[in-house]
Amino acid sequence: MTPEEIEKRLAFARAVAEDAGKIALRYFRQPLEVENKLEGEQFDPVTRADREVEAEIRQKLGEAYPDDSIIGEEAGTSEGSSDIAWIIDPIDGTRAFISGVPAWGTLLGLMESDNCVGGLMHQPYIGETFVGGPSGAFLYRQGQQTALRSRQGATLGDAILYCTHPNHFESEADLAGFQRVAEASRLYRFGGDCYSYCLLAQGQIDLVIEGGLQPYDIIPLIPLIEAAGGVVTDRDGRPATKGGLIVAAANARLHAEALALLNG
Amino acid sequence: MTPEEIEKRLAFARAVAEDAGKIALRYFRQPLEVENKLEGEQFDPVTRADREVEAEIRQKLGEAYPDDSIIGEEAGTSEGSSDIAWIIDPIDGTRAFISGVPAWGTLLGLMESDNCVGGLMHQPYIGETFVGGPSGAFLYRQGQQTALRSRQGATLGDAILYCTHPNHFESEADLAGFQRVAEASRLYRFGGDCYSYCLLAQGQIDLVIEGGLQPYDIIPLIPLIEAAGGVVTDRDGRPATKGGLIVAAANARLHAEALALLNG
Repeated sequence: MTPEEIEKRLAFARAVAEDAGKIALRYFRQPLEVENKLEGEQFDPVTRADREVEAEIRQKLGEAYPDDSIIGEEAGTSEGSSDIAWIIDPIDGTRAFISGVPAWGTLLGLMESDNCVGGLMHQPYIGETFVGGPSGAFLYRQGQQTALRSRQGATLGDAILYCTHPNHFESEADLAGFQRVAEASRLYRFGGDCYSYCLLAQGQIDLVIEGGLQPYDIIPLIPLIEAAGGVVTDRDGRPATKGGLIVAAANARLHAEALALLNG
Repeated sequence: MTPEEIEKRLAFARAVAEDAGKIALRYFRQPLEVENKLEGEQFDPVTRADREVEAEIRQKLGEAYPDDSIIGEEAGTSEGSSDIAWIIDPIDGTRAFISGVPAWGTLLGLMESDNCVGGLMHQPYIGETFVGGPSGAFLYRQGQQTALRSRQGATLGDAILYCTHPNHFESEADLAGFQRVAEASRLYRFGGDCYSYCLLAQGQIDLVIEGGLQPYDIIPLIPLIEAAGGVVTDRDGRPATKGGLIVAAANARLHAEALALLNG
């Protein structure tokens, strides 16, 4: 695709995600004790929101771009005839969602063969959409478009590091590696979910390190991080597209510093 | 004060906090690398936001209620002639603030002698104000007022537990106590800051346990938690007004369960 074709798809994807956000909000911060009475079965708002949001997005993308593949967390893969694929995580950050914390988001990624060429995160309760593509990284909020840039001068000693949860690391050794980076940074905090990668793009957070990610958790965020000037890979410096233990940094030098300490 | 007098003061306090939120937003999510060039000195946005927000609130409260005492995190105590005092934490959650995470808030508490009779938390980026007083606990957002109720039926096994940071506990024994409660709960997460107590009042989170709180961090939130049906004390079940290790729970039974495990 040309950059123009990618940006056209991303603009459409943003409208689709923002529409689907209205569905997610119907299930967010609802009193569970009331909702459990709606049906005989156990009410699981996040599963239902996940399913309905993904169905809505799949339908609209499928109508507009019938040749593209669609790969969603909930409903699996619809093979298309082109080498273009959409990756959907309808509600990324389900634990934040069920806690009422607006750090979850709808993730939509756009791939051409093996390349992540565009992506977005939409957080409907706060009313923000973070988009990365060929023309840069942008935050859309309250009708305003703001260009994003990660902190190009950040070093480990003045970095703010986020990690969603220490228990997501797959081994004690990985957690110990994270702790080495944490202790060398200016400040480290847990929590954040997909929202942390958006704040990295915006130059607020400098490092995100977390374990146990699925491909659809990170693919839509890669273009956002990279278009803002950041670097994101797995722990060995390879593409982050397979998930696992992911290291995102505001710049290449910081990324190298973090990787060395993490694996040291 | 009569309940009506308290509610009148709280309505005024909400307007004051929401006005002061505009000041805080001038400093939130600003690109530090740009702002550092504004002056010779190191630019510290949170300190400046703290100071300016508190000064604005003190001035307006002092004009409207000249006999009340005002106790602020930044500018200390202005003794009044009555037994009524305002407690101000202009930016609670400074680490969230500098990370761009909208979990910080402006806290305003109202005391009569030793009693916390009302309080509020305002989060200007999301546009929410949580208020607790004699007539109940309410969320104000987008011109709507929503009554809040903590989960009266929550037990430890289905509780969602939040804690801002494991490092805020003052000893390894305290952290181990927290871990005992965490492992018995349905889900535990770090992060959240003062926002977690608001979500507890809203019935989304069921337990908040954290160490190292100052009195002004918790006093304004006590009436919100209690008016929503929750319970908040220190680790020994005494009033939370002195800060320290604080346990907030959605109901009395859950509070007792958590305290027993924490201290066990």
